[in-house]
Amino acid sequence: MTAEYIKSVVKSVPDYPKPGIVFRDVTSVLEDHKAFSCCISLLLEKYRPMNFDKVAGTEARGFLFGAPLAIELGIGFVPVRKPNKLPREVVSESYDLEYGTDTLEIHKDAIQPGDKVLLIDDLLATGGTIGASAKLIRHLGGEVNHAGFVIGLPDLGGREKLTELGIDSFTLCEFDGD
Amino acid sequence: MTAEYIKSVVKSVPDYPKPGIVFRDVTSVLEDHKAFSCCISLLLEKYRPMNFDKVAGTEARGFLFGAPLAIELGIGFVPVRKPNKLPREVVSESYDLEYGTDTLEIHKDAIQPGDKVLLIDDLLATGGTIGASAKLIRHLGGEVNHAGFVIGLPDLGGREKLTELGIDSFTLCEFDGD
Repeated sequence: MTAEYIKSVVKSVPDYPKPGIVFRDVTSVLEDHKAFSCCISLLLEKYRPMNFDKVAGTEARGFLFGAPLAIELGIGFVPVRKPNKLPREVVSESYDLEYGTDTLEIHKDAIQPGDKVLLIDDLLATGGTIGASAKLIRHLGGEVNHAGFVIGLPDLGGREKLTELGIDSFTLCEFDGD
Repeated sequence: MTAEYIKSVVKSVPDYPKPGIVFRDVTSVLEDHKAFSCCISLLLEKYRPMNFDKVAGTEARGFLFGAPLAIELGIGFVPVRKPNKLPREVVSESYDLEYGTDTLEIHKDAIQPGDKVLLIDDLLATGGTIGASAKLIRHLGGEVNHAGFVIGLPDLGGREKLTELGIDSFTLCEFDGD
């Protein structure tokens, strides 16, 4: 199983969430055991040698890939969540969407100063979500230099945005022309 | 590592989400690799002999335990999501909350008739979420007879509710007196 197989399993949904957009649907990867386990194996191969302390994943699709990867890496998983979902003391970070803003939160005690944290999400588009997640972790003293994704949409500039933030991004497969 | 260890790691947050409620916070389990991997091992030991076709998990905390378990069981993972999150054709099910209702959705093509589906969530309280998830899967022709949880709150009657629906529930640890 290879990244080409994963790409072949991703379903493309035209005109979602609005006309003219082709949505790359990662749920079809989850439903195919070979594709899903291949994602985790390839991320493991890339990131195991780097000796991270924690994996952080962003609600909700980042949980699906980040949690199994953390188990395989033998380290803890830190959820980055939407507002009012985490019960203990949090720090918050807002970021721009196409229209308006969104906010993410993380438990204050989830990151210790000096923790090397790997960010995982399903899809790299503009990089807004991962950029905000990285700011939260850095605010708590964690180091974030790497982010891994199943799907990349290189036309949307996420890789360049993350590079500006000092984050090296890695995608298992890419789709052009959205 | 045992279920007692998992229970010792769950953080109890008083007066969340409102005064008088003690919230059992499973994020502390995720952040502790030993506890998190112990959850997956114990669920695997319980469910591997039953030969399920798919694991379904409910947004968002059900993703955290259901996805790694599906990988370990060697079967696909089906996300049950909040409204307007799934891009392809869905079926929907509403269920009662303490005040008002909530709705869950599943992709129509995620379940084939006769699929044996294991439901996984982080916490069994009243059983409303899992009951609605089971209805969705049964509506698509799937069989649902088992649901696994990390935490159970037996005082809230979820086990009895699920028994009425023909679902056998299994929890790794329980907290009384909420």
